[in-house]
Amino acid sequence: MLCAATSKMILKHITFTKRRSLATVTNELRRLFESDPEIIDSNPYELDRHGRGESFHPSKPPSHIVHVRTTQQIQDVVKACASTSPPTPIVPFGAGTSLEGHVGSTNPDSISISTTKNFNQLVSVDPSSLQCTVQPGITRHKLNHELRATGLQFMVDPGADASIGGMAATNASGTSAVKFGVMRDNVLQVKVVTSSGEEITAGSKTFKNSAGYDLKNLFVGSEGTLGVITEITLRLHPIVDHIESSVCAFQSLTQACDAVVTLLSCGVPVAKCEVLDGPAIHAFNLYSKDVDDMTPQPHLFVELQDISEAGLASQRNIVEEILNDCGGTNIEFSANPAVRKKLWAARHDTYYASCALRPGEGMGIVTDACVPLGQLASVIAATAEDIQTSEVIGPVFGHAGDGNFHCILPVRDTDSEEYLQKLEDVNDRLISRTLAAGGTCTGEHGVGSGKMKYLTTQYGEGAVDIMRAIKESLDPKNIFNPGKIITP
Amino acid sequence: MLCAATSKMILKHITFTKRRSLATVTNELRRLFESDPEIIDSNPYELDRHGRGESFHPSKPPSHIVHVRTTQQIQDVVKACASTSPPTPIVPFGAGTSLEGHVGSTNPDSISISTTKNFNQLVSVDPSSLQCTVQPGITRHKLNHELRATGLQFMVDPGADASIGGMAATNASGTSAVKFGVMRDNVLQVKVVTSSGEEITAGSKTFKNSAGYDLKNLFVGSEGTLGVITEITLRLHPIVDHIESSVCAFQSLTQACDAVVTLLSCGVPVAKCEVLDGPAIHAFNLYSKDVDDMTPQPHLFVELQDISEAGLASQRNIVEEILNDCGGTNIEFSANPAVRKKLWAARHDTYYASCALRPGEGMGIVTDACVPLGQLASVIAATAEDIQTSEVIGPVFGHAGDGNFHCILPVRDTDSEEYLQKLEDVNDRLISRTLAAGGTCTGEHGVGSGKMKYLTTQYGEGAVDIMRAIKESLDPKNIFNPGKIITP
Repeated sequence: MLCAATSKMILKHITFTKRRSLATVTNELRRLFESDPEIIDSNPYELDRHGRGESFHPSKPPSHIVHVRTTQQIQDVVKACASTSPPTPIVPFGAGTSLEGHVGSTNPDSISISTTKNFNQLVSVDPSSLQCTVQPGITRHKLNHELRATGLQFMVDPGADASIGGMAATNASGTSAVKFGVMRDNVLQVKVVTSSGEEITAGSKTFKNSAGYDLKNLFVGSEGTLGVITEITLRLHPIVDHIESSVCAFQSLTQACDAVVTLLSCGVPVAKCEVLDGPAIHAFNLYSKDVDDMTPQPHLFVELQDISEAGLASQRNIVEEILNDCGGTNIEFSANPAVRKKLWAARHDTYYASCALRPGEGMGIVTDACVPLGQLASVIAATAEDIQTSEVIGPVFGHAGDGNFHCILPVRDTDSEEYLQKLEDVNDRLISRTLAAGGTCTGEHGVGSGKMKYLTTQYGEGAVDIMRAIKESLDPKNIFNPGKIITP
Repeated sequence: MLCAATSKMILKHITFTKRRSLATVTNELRRLFESDPEIIDSNPYELDRHGRGESFHPSKPPSHIVHVRTTQQIQDVVKACASTSPPTPIVPFGAGTSLEGHVGSTNPDSISISTTKNFNQLVSVDPSSLQCTVQPGITRHKLNHELRATGLQFMVDPGADASIGGMAATNASGTSAVKFGVMRDNVLQVKVVTSSGEEITAGSKTFKNSAGYDLKNLFVGSEGTLGVITEITLRLHPIVDHIESSVCAFQSLTQACDAVVTLLSCGVPVAKCEVLDGPAIHAFNLYSKDVDDMTPQPHLFVELQDISEAGLASQRNIVEEILNDCGGTNIEFSANPAVRKKLWAARHDTYYASCALRPGEGMGIVTDACVPLGQLASVIAATAEDIQTSEVIGPVFGHAGDGNFHCILPVRDTDSEEYLQKLEDVNDRLISRTLAAGGTCTGEHGVGSGKMKYLTTQYGEGAVDIMRAIKESLDPKNIFNPGKIITP
């Protein structure tokens, strides 16, 4: 064992070496970008913003931000960071809307490669191939705005106005996944700067591809730990004219979830299919002044789309029959775009509505369990019951058609240790219940730092060892977003 | 440089070591399975069959076959093969329907792990989760037969009665992919025995999963080069009652492909969407006595499905209008199940019909190009024209909705060198044209040994180097199906 003085000396040496390596890399970046100095940013507000997403994870700022404009600049940063001793970590950053501490710098001497400011363009649209190619920093609202004239749209909708690069990095999805799939289904090809500084192409611009290992899906969902995404080709879908939303109340969450199983088992091509428990509807009523109050009991929100009015009507008839048969009441359909828009805007505000149930400063713990569809009723009902008996506030809602649900547990700065412990216990039991049902700890938010501890329980040592081997093989110096997804 | 005698001595030593290592492994397998000796097979007919698929690639038989019954037996074989010096290669084998030389033993001292005889059961069905779990050796016909009572079906249909393990290994698809996706979309979870002999789980039984690197999609499509698949959980879809097929003629392939783009751009949820050129229809007429003759000009076969008669009728009206607008003629719809069945059986026979255009012994070269949808018209038309001007026989047809098409080039044992050269040239130009259009050399058949030479041109050195690094990392001894997908 080392004596205290020796340990201290070694630590001092390491710290000194690290700081020197950071100084080396920042000097190198200043030299590289001397004709474009404003892309290097160390404004404290921006550093803080680049260290966190939208959840309760505290900010872990990087040392510097580079607001890259080109792939070449990303390659330059990667090469500079890889060449220092020790190597300088790189954390790619999009819109900062992630929820699991993905963008926090576990090492403060990190460089953030930030894309939303200067690397955010729609590169090309190929309407007859139903696809477009974008830079990673474009947000989905901007993308859909720019696509308008084509009659096509990008369908993945996580609620937040996230960047496409960030959405690809976490394999995001949202309310439309039940029909249009998740990011892995909608990203056809990515270009990525790897640890050598080279840009490679993964996937192809085709709807199908059986050529070699699936690198595209390996990079999608790798949360910036295997490289920096520089370009993304996305599958687009036609804008459909005939849309109708429905709202329906149930006596129990089990009834509501059973209705979802019936809808999907009958082949109804639901475009959205969301479940909300009583407390979520209560939060909704208090927060969303634009939408008529609903009885505070479990609800389903279902959206139908069709290419014709007649087709939509036939879907509506079948859905109404199923909802009725499954015990649904107060069933209301609306084709009015304004009503639909308000409903979904309110649904997307459920996080804020839930947090507003507990006044005060703070944020919410957002869980992201996903289970096999047939297990949803029991898991979601047990979770809602656990929350009630634990006497904490935690509305439950989610993408029922995918078996994916969230529970918002608002945390207040003034919360007692005892209350915080209750929240942690509720969360732990929720994950245990989910994994026992064959589920995953994260359906759409990703692992970040927040879900790392569950990975081995979910997959077993063997699978996690393979993930680790892939990380070590593709990023031997561990420069890309270290300390996320898996421990070294 | 070594003298000839030394070289010969070294070669002899290597051969001797290899044979000794094979003797070691077969003795070990006999010892391991002494209570179940009939699972070890070295019948010459079976060895020959286990060395090839259904294409022109000549058989490369293994030394022995093990008709495994359990995962434990697979683990035993892998451990035994990994422990010899040099290691003994393992080639997983399903139904033997692959087309790119996937199952040929590049080293004759290999062990084939064969699954269709004894490892072919439906393990469980979870109807309310719309999924089932199977052993890899079950074939898709058997699976769908066993699923009948559930009202659910497995939707990936490559034509051949392939094993589910083999279909997962090649990321197979077929006529239904345009609506129901490819194997990667329909496999939720796989269990795999890796190079250490351990069984790991990749993916989860949920419709969505953002937890860690996508190992599931890495193993799906890895063609037995990263491990042996032991269990597969599949997404199922409800059997829909309202189905209608349509057949429509066009003046040109370009018109037919443009009609496909229009159908998809309008959001028509086509369940199948196949294009056939004039020569393919001619072959079809000669071969398929069950189906009425069609004019030998480009055709589209489209299948529509809906949950109601009214919905189906509205789809039919829109499709008819689009086909008419795009220059389609002789449009015929049929809801008669017998007519539909005959049509699709005949479509699945196109390979044999094409081969029958050139009487004699031999097989066909099957190409598998896939391009971005908007490029399909020009690539497919240029290919059909090239075939005509090259004066070879090669009907063109394929999964137009996916941009994936095949060209069958029948090869006869009596063919002259000159004719064979023409076929090779047509094939090379087809691949060049495909890659230039942003396509992939294989949309659904996989790389095997046949497409290896195109991988670097398609992806670039960098991406192929990453595939190589993954292979070396997961299979350091190169025991799993060596000599496929990538060169070491």
